[in-house]
Amino acid sequence: MKNISYIDHFEQWQRSFHFFRRVKVRFCETDMFGHLNNTVPFIYFEEVRTEFLKALGFMDQWTREESEEIPVVADLKCDFLKQVFFDDELYVYVKVHEIGRSSVDLHYMVKKDDKEVVLVGRGTLVQINKRTGKSVPWNDVMRQKLQHSQSVLFV
Amino acid sequence: MKNISYIDHFEQWQRSFHFFRRVKVRFCETDMFGHLNNTVPFIYFEEVRTEFLKALGFMDQWTREESEEIPVVADLKCDFLKQVFFDDELYVYVKVHEIGRSSVDLHYMVKKDDKEVVLVGRGTLVQINKRTGKSVPWNDVMRQKLQHSQSVLFV
Amino acid sequence: MKNISYIDHFEQWQRSFHFFRRVKVRFCETDMFGHLNNTVPFIYFEEVRTEFLKALGFMDQWTREESEEIPVVADLKCDFLKQVFFDDELYVYVKVHEIGRSSVDLHYMVKKDDKEVVLVGRGTLVQINKRTGKSVPWNDVMRQKLQHSQSVLFV
Amino acid sequence: MKNISYIDHFEQWQRSFHFFRRVKVRFCETDMFGHLNNTVPFIYFEEVRTEFLKALGFMDQWTREESEEIPVVADLKCDFLKQVFFDDELYVYVKVHEIGRSSVDLHYMVKKDDKEVVLVGRGTLVQINKRTGKSVPWNDVMRQKLQHSQSVLFV
Repeated sequence: MKNISYIDHFEQWQRSFHFFRRVKVRFCETDMFGHLNNTVPFIYFEEVRTEFLKALGFMDQWTREESEEIPVVADLKCDFLKQVFFDDELYVYVKVHEIGRSSVDLHYMVKKDDKEVVLVGRGTLVQINKRTGKSVPWNDVMRQKLQHSQSVLFV
Repeated sequence: MKNISYIDHFEQWQRSFHFFRRVKVRFCETDMFGHLNNTVPFIYFEEVRTEFLKALGFMDQWTREESEEIPVVADLKCDFLKQVFFDDELYVYVKVHEIGRSSVDLHYMVKKDDKEVVLVGRGTLVQINKRTGKSVPWNDVMRQKLQHSQSVLFV
Repeated sequence: MKNISYIDHFEQWQRSFHFFRRVKVRFCETDMFGHLNNTVPFIYFEEVRTEFLKALGFMDQWTREESEEIPVVADLKCDFLKQVFFDDELYVYVKVHEIGRSSVDLHYMVKKDDKEVVLVGRGTLVQINKRTGKSVPWNDVMRQKLQHSQSVLFV
Repeated sequence: MKNISYIDHFEQWQRSFHFFRRVKVRFCETDMFGHLNNTVPFIYFEEVRTEFLKALGFMDQWTREESEEIPVVADLKCDFLKQVFFDDELYVYVKVHEIGRSSVDLHYMVKKDDKEVVLVGRGTLVQINKRTGKSVPWNDVMRQKLQHSQSVLFV
């Protein structure tokens, strides 16, 4: 197992995820080297992230036309542990790692057939004002929801 | 040459195109069969179409936030004549075939190295009202621009 | 309902589909006009088509390295009936319309929440030899499977 | 300027890039928040990386059918400094940061109109054996080419 800066204890880290969505690798997501193209995991990360933010009630708010705020990705990283192939059945997990004033650090884990970890990642999401581009602090309700999501019971 | 319903005389049809953009096939646009994935030509069609609509001054108008209108694709077709591969240099052409009340029928032609035709296509674009979804007729200026684009001098 | 050349009786045509896959619209599949980008339905068509060809046992054969044959898309069309949006739950159907010597004409239908038809399409798939690019006729087993797929019982 | 772990002196770092490709933001690369979708910079990174590897003569070798080796992405990161929009003209730079035994650490910088830096990134590429998945050390010629690419004269 290669050393990944944002993972302390790999076994423990794996067990800290609860929220996931299943994703099948599409044919058009492969490339001429015969495997999943390197640009695609970020699509899977976005898929589970938006599902997670929907479950928190955040997406509904942000996608309303009159909303002043939108989330933006500040950084995003993927570590590729194993090659992934067409038709692989992936379990894409996301969890809150750390909550900032107007941002949240999310971790990602992707298991093939819910067994072997094939991809891991992390990235920071920031809530900004759509017009000014300035960061907007989480309100109390949002902060509580982010904290609550770290409990085992949130799925 | 297979029979394609929207092309009468292939030689003549080829010569009727003037507006084009060059596109290089990206690695991630290939699939595990080693060639350009079948979903990608529609991206090239969109690229040359938006460049064409920009040249007409339409995109500027439609992408303004206060704009009431947007264009929508009503139908879109691609005929695949030759396989296309990674790093192929494509010349993607578009032209106005027919102008409707609130719509325009566009034709597409893609040549490899500006020589061999590898893909052809067509599709109707409709101007609609963003809120109501109803079609909005071209105004006189727009109609003239669409007509003018059919002349040889428009590039 | 607009007139679509490959559909005779729309009600009857709708009832002739049995095989489908559910697809959720991903956030990255929207564009700045706020709806599903026009290039994406072809990805959904490919997804249900590969699932269908897998169910027939064709994909397994074609994706084996020693396979001499691959399928290629000869043409592909989409008619956009209704705008589709982020998070819409789509039921993407496919069926065999007509079987050729080495090709098959497939029809596609996409329903939102398995109710309203939002997209329809069609396209021809051809089996070719990977090296020569020449078409390769279906063998008897393949032809029977394609015919059998048209029965109600195939799902 | 936010703190980015792989950049020591930002001004100096900027000046160390020479190899680039121009990329126009495609309409379908935007999302319903009106800007470039977060999954797309990785496509731009791949585009300039493959162009760079082509210029080195590596891609030709790796894409030959009889080749035993392919490159795989071991990790990939993007830091999003400014929002990017439809039709933005981007200058996407890549450079060799560090050469390993069978890997290379590449840095990426994306400037809007070749002026303002809007995206930066990094990632490791590893040469592996296609069958075994084991890493394959660079030969002397490859190593020299990678080293040479760090000189100002390579474009």
